[in-house]
Amino acid sequence: MSDDPLVLFMPSGKRGRFPKGTPILEAARELGVYVESVCGGRGICGRCQIEVADGRFAKHGITSSAEHVSPFGAKEQRYAEKRELKPGRRLSCSAMVEGDLVVDIPQDVQINAQVVRKADDGRVIERNPAVQLCYVEVDEPDMHKPLGDLDRLKEALERDWGWADLMVDHHLLAKVQSILRQGQWKVTAVIHKDMETSRPSLIALYPGLHNEAWAIACDIGSTTIAMHLVSLLSGATIASSGVSNPQIRFGEDLMSRVSYVMMNPDGREAMTKAVRDALNELITKVCDEAGIDRNDIYDLTFVGNPIMHHLFLGIDPTELGGAPFALAVSGAVHTWASELDLVINPGARVYVLPCIAGHVGADAAAVTLTEGPHRQDERMLIVDVGTNAEIVLGNRDRLLAASSPTGPAFEGAEISCGQRAAPGAIERVRIDPQTLEPRVRVLGIELWSDEEGFTEAAETLGVTGICGSGIIEVVAEMFLAGIISADGVIDGSLAAKSDRIVANGRTWSYVLWRGDQQLVITQNDVRAIQLAKAALYAGIRLLMDKLDIETVDTIRFAGAFGSFIDPKYAMVLGLIPDCDLDKVSAVGNAAGTGAKMAVLNRDHRREIEATVREIEKIETALESRFQEHFVNAMALPNKAEPFPKLAAQVKLPAVKELAEAEAGNGGRRRRRRGR
Amino acid sequence: MSDDPLVLFMPSGKRGRFPKGTPILEAARELGVYVESVCGGRGICGRCQIEVADGRFAKHGITSSAEHVSPFGAKEQRYAEKRELKPGRRLSCSAMVEGDLVVDIPQDVQINAQVVRKADDGRVIERNPAVQLCYVEVDEPDMHKPLGDLDRLKEALERDWGWADLMVDHHLLAKVQSILRQGQWKVTAVIHKDMETSRPSLIALYPGLHNEAWAIACDIGSTTIAMHLVSLLSGATIASSGVSNPQIRFGEDLMSRVSYVMMNPDGREAMTKAVRDALNELITKVCDEAGIDRNDIYDLTFVGNPIMHHLFLGIDPTELGGAPFALAVSGAVHTWASELDLVINPGARVYVLPCIAGHVGADAAAVTLTEGPHRQDERMLIVDVGTNAEIVLGNRDRLLAASSPTGPAFEGAEISCGQRAAPGAIERVRIDPQTLEPRVRVLGIELWSDEEGFTEAAETLGVTGICGSGIIEVVAEMFLAGIISADGVIDGSLAAKSDRIVANGRTWSYVLWRGDQQLVITQNDVRAIQLAKAALYAGIRLLMDKLDIETVDTIRFAGAFGSFIDPKYAMVLGLIPDCDLDKVSAVGNAAGTGAKMAVLNRDHRREIEATVREIEKIETALESRFQEHFVNAMALPNKAEPFPKLAAQVKLPAVKELAEAEAGNGGRRRRRRGR
Repeated sequence: MSDDPLVLFMPSGKRGRFPKGTPILEAARELGVYVESVCGGRGICGRCQIEVADGRFAKHGITSSAEHVSPFGAKEQRYAEKRELKPGRRLSCSAMVEGDLVVDIPQDVQINAQVVRKADDGRVIERNPAVQLCYVEVDEPDMHKPLGDLDRLKEALERDWGWADLMVDHHLLAKVQSILRQGQWKVTAVIHKDMETSRPSLIALYPGLHNEAWAIACDIGSTTIAMHLVSLLSGATIASSGVSNPQIRFGEDLMSRVSYVMMNPDGREAMTKAVRDALNELITKVCDEAGIDRNDIYDLTFVGNPIMHHLFLGIDPTELGGAPFALAVSGAVHTWASELDLVINPGARVYVLPCIAGHVGADAAAVTLTEGPHRQDERMLIVDVGTNAEIVLGNRDRLLAASSPTGPAFEGAEISCGQRAAPGAIERVRIDPQTLEPRVRVLGIELWSDEEGFTEAAETLGVTGICGSGIIEVVAEMFLAGIISADGVIDGSLAAKSDRIVANGRTWSYVLWRGDQQLVITQNDVRAIQLAKAALYAGIRLLMDKLDIETVDTIRFAGAFGSFIDPKYAMVLGLIPDCDLDKVSAVGNAAGTGAKMAVLNRDHRREIEATVREIEKIETALESRFQEHFVNAMALPNKAEPFPKLAAQVKLPAVKELAEAEAGNGGRRRRRRGR
Repeated sequence: MSDDPLVLFMPSGKRGRFPKGTPILEAARELGVYVESVCGGRGICGRCQIEVADGRFAKHGITSSAEHVSPFGAKEQRYAEKRELKPGRRLSCSAMVEGDLVVDIPQDVQINAQVVRKADDGRVIERNPAVQLCYVEVDEPDMHKPLGDLDRLKEALERDWGWADLMVDHHLLAKVQSILRQGQWKVTAVIHKDMETSRPSLIALYPGLHNEAWAIACDIGSTTIAMHLVSLLSGATIASSGVSNPQIRFGEDLMSRVSYVMMNPDGREAMTKAVRDALNELITKVCDEAGIDRNDIYDLTFVGNPIMHHLFLGIDPTELGGAPFALAVSGAVHTWASELDLVINPGARVYVLPCIAGHVGADAAAVTLTEGPHRQDERMLIVDVGTNAEIVLGNRDRLLAASSPTGPAFEGAEISCGQRAAPGAIERVRIDPQTLEPRVRVLGIELWSDEEGFTEAAETLGVTGICGSGIIEVVAEMFLAGIISADGVIDGSLAAKSDRIVANGRTWSYVLWRGDQQLVITQNDVRAIQLAKAALYAGIRLLMDKLDIETVDTIRFAGAFGSFIDPKYAMVLGLIPDCDLDKVSAVGNAAGTGAKMAVLNRDHRREIEATVREIEKIETALESRFQEHFVNAMALPNKAEPFPKLAAQVKLPAVKELAEAEAGNGGRRRRRRGR
């Protein structure tokens, strides 16, 4: 065993022994720890800052001390004078190993003072970006060796940085001479390298030291576009913003947008332009917020459902409107930002994550990348509820995906008093099983309806309808209070006990709200929820069949809908299979996080590409058992299966006999609207 | 030794033994003989036609016979019925080896009837083009395996043609679905693969079988742009055309074009647009002539001197206007035709040959590729004369290049009665050494001046001046006739003998032509030619010094000037070193041929890239011996060196004492005008 000092890097935990005098940056490189360095160890960029921990790390058997590093060198002195080096910080290109060390790689190495970071979700994504800044000093022209200016630049990039056989973006040909002269033969090259089998490209060039490199990660939802601006040099998210998808003016849901394309000769172009314009505006917004130059954006990743994916890329989505739901392209797309009319650095590249299937898009792939069922042994169910629910189920051994035609009921459509989640919408409901009286919470009012001040607030705001999460809760609470039976029928006999139960033709309704506007849950509303949840559950159950499992270990609700619904009520209604409630969680915009992972680390791109190739795609419409599961799942929570874990956590009503599900419901036409 | 039949392919001479039943196409592939096949052996494209020779080939020890091939198969029957199969032709994908064979690969396999070919120079260039057409049948969409349409196309291209990991041009994303459906899942993919280390790209896609693939090879001269349209499937040149470089309106010679850029803010853009517009017009012209669709052009190669090269690529050439004459880029340039505003297939690629140095461009590289000094043992001198002469000298062991500032005298400028090579210009001169009377030939008149009918023709046409080749001949003939001495002085004493010798101030002139316009060769004209030839010879001599050689084995004159001058007179004047006259030849537009080689065979691209890297670049301005050689070379043919081979072939006058060359002439400012 060598006597060389032991160096441990945190947070990665990578360790190795290095001879005294080894620059810490070199040690990091040898261990594959990603420490940024734009200037290549010249001590001028300040990107390679590290901190040395002080103390005894018993677990690792290391006693680390700032004394175990070489004293402040000339490069660090000069840097500290010119810029600023916080106490405890060292430049790892200058600081050399002199004894055992624990080295922290700070995540905040930002030169900009105006760093915003407010939008960071705190997740640490290990960096291995496709973009690298490389400062070089280029030989001056020599008549004895008349290599072109660009050729000598390439020579320097190979000599100092090991970039052999670089491709060069065409737009740089006309600029390279003036940039080299402006920088007096000192320039910063921006290199993009993604696919391992492709050649790295020189995509931008700056005179002197250029210390800025940004990327965009973006989730194009059919309702909302969410964008994150992240630093390729530190990994930090410094601005996030969202905007309504302007394609809404062509059609609220996905199918109506496909119809618009089919009906209008310029429909595809108009919608492509609308989304790209919105992206350019969002880029302006995040750049303004962060105070950065949009020309310093070099790499972008996008996710979205298949129709958003196609319209963004300029592809006619008509084929996605009917069987066999053929994607134009399912694999990851690599292209230029300029091909997509994005106004940023002309050399910037775009990576679009792969789609899983015609109904399961790059957004579902991104959620999978974020939550990582393929990285673990536990069987995870991921559900992203929209007009179609996207379902991913499995673990590292086997992963399946499908979509189920839930219809728009969960989004408040097809519900008599349903509405979008907006101020004035009822979002939470509790029903007293004795009195059958409801308590509600309304979006925009931070009080329950039986709390002081609510009535006044409600009168001011106006209570206008019930949103998706409210629908789930009211139907589940009606079931728990015995107002509806397991087969979903509202019990008219309770009208004798409560004036909330009222006749409505030959069926009964439940009066949820009495105000300017009376909000009533009808028998048809309950049926709509039953149909939607049966479709979702049948899809999930189908995947469980394929895996031959009866329960799942964890459940993740992705997307906006998932963020608002209470897992307990989702399970009471039987949207999702039986599971420990504390293993069910909402993961918010996991698709956006997946886009961020892909932009910061190209290993994640290869990871999701390989994962998507391996995922087994199940087409629910072609599976004979889907119909059977659908019929069973009409019941609350489900006719055919017990929910023992749920029953242990929630007092379920005694199961009554379930009426047969209406004929014809199982064969509903597939509808789409997305998240 | 195997008993399998022996198969010999002509013209390559490659041979091998193959089991009976081997398709001839497969045998060709195994031996690396390039036989085209678009349909991949389905017998529908007809591109793989071969002929079987009949008879005994004693030299090869083969008796070949049409009987040694399997009988006409079903695929050939079908093809012959639908299209046409000339007598003796077989489809090599269908015809199988049954005995010893000599197989001819015809160079004319053209499906188009309208093949023009008139412009072909007959040179057979072995094909290994960067473009390949690949017909495939793609799986239809399958909901059980929801790969995108493009992804299934890529799968088919990998399965049938071995293309793994294809890149796809962005413009195809939006088209792939409709093309696949239009072709009912049968399509022809156009694949471009050039750099060995880069990934192949899908650049175009057609429904059904597409049997057309064309390329452009183009030499952008400062005076003339020459373009060839060649078939990538057969190698044939089917149309050639040329046009004046429209940049002439911004400046006749190269330096005045650089000045125009320096003086005018939009000068570079205007000249770039001018040349690209001219290229688009030429493309229209060659396509019309050949009756082909310009969208079937997929690959283009360009050559040109450094300033034409830069202006074409949109690069400011200002740096080339002064020391150190820095090229923006010297290596080969790979780009898209669309980046250069060329209106052809949107996926078409462009390859620009490398430049050798700031004064020795991609045109010189192309001439080198064509003439191949690096492929042989004989020491070859290549001279391309323009305002700067580009000189390449050496063999496979060592190759050198330089340019010499000859000035524009060889092009008729700086000569009192000089003019461009155009009708009315004297191009050939003979002087009777006894009478000193001249005979001439004039461009546009197919007679010598002492032949019957010349006088009338000359009166009709008008004799207006003397062009480059005429200048060389008249000065050389004046020397051979004793009118000028070896030091270039016109002998005034001859005025007594001939009225052609007339006084002109303090010097003498020679009256070459008496007509409406009198054309006189003055002492200054002779001096201008002496200066130009001394500069050229000094450059050549410098390279010979570096190689430590006294003679060269072969001499090639490239370019328009070289095509018209008589090697004998060039050597009498000492433009070129002593050499057997039958080893001196003009090679016409060898630069255009080099461009053709590069477009038809990417091995030639690698070959010239490697050769240019190895060429030793000599900057004459930095070499102290250049001046010495220049002074010696003022004499005819040269003061310092004997011309024994020349003397054995041409009766040279006795050498008189040579006056010292005028001081100051050696230090002339470098001037440029190019070919």
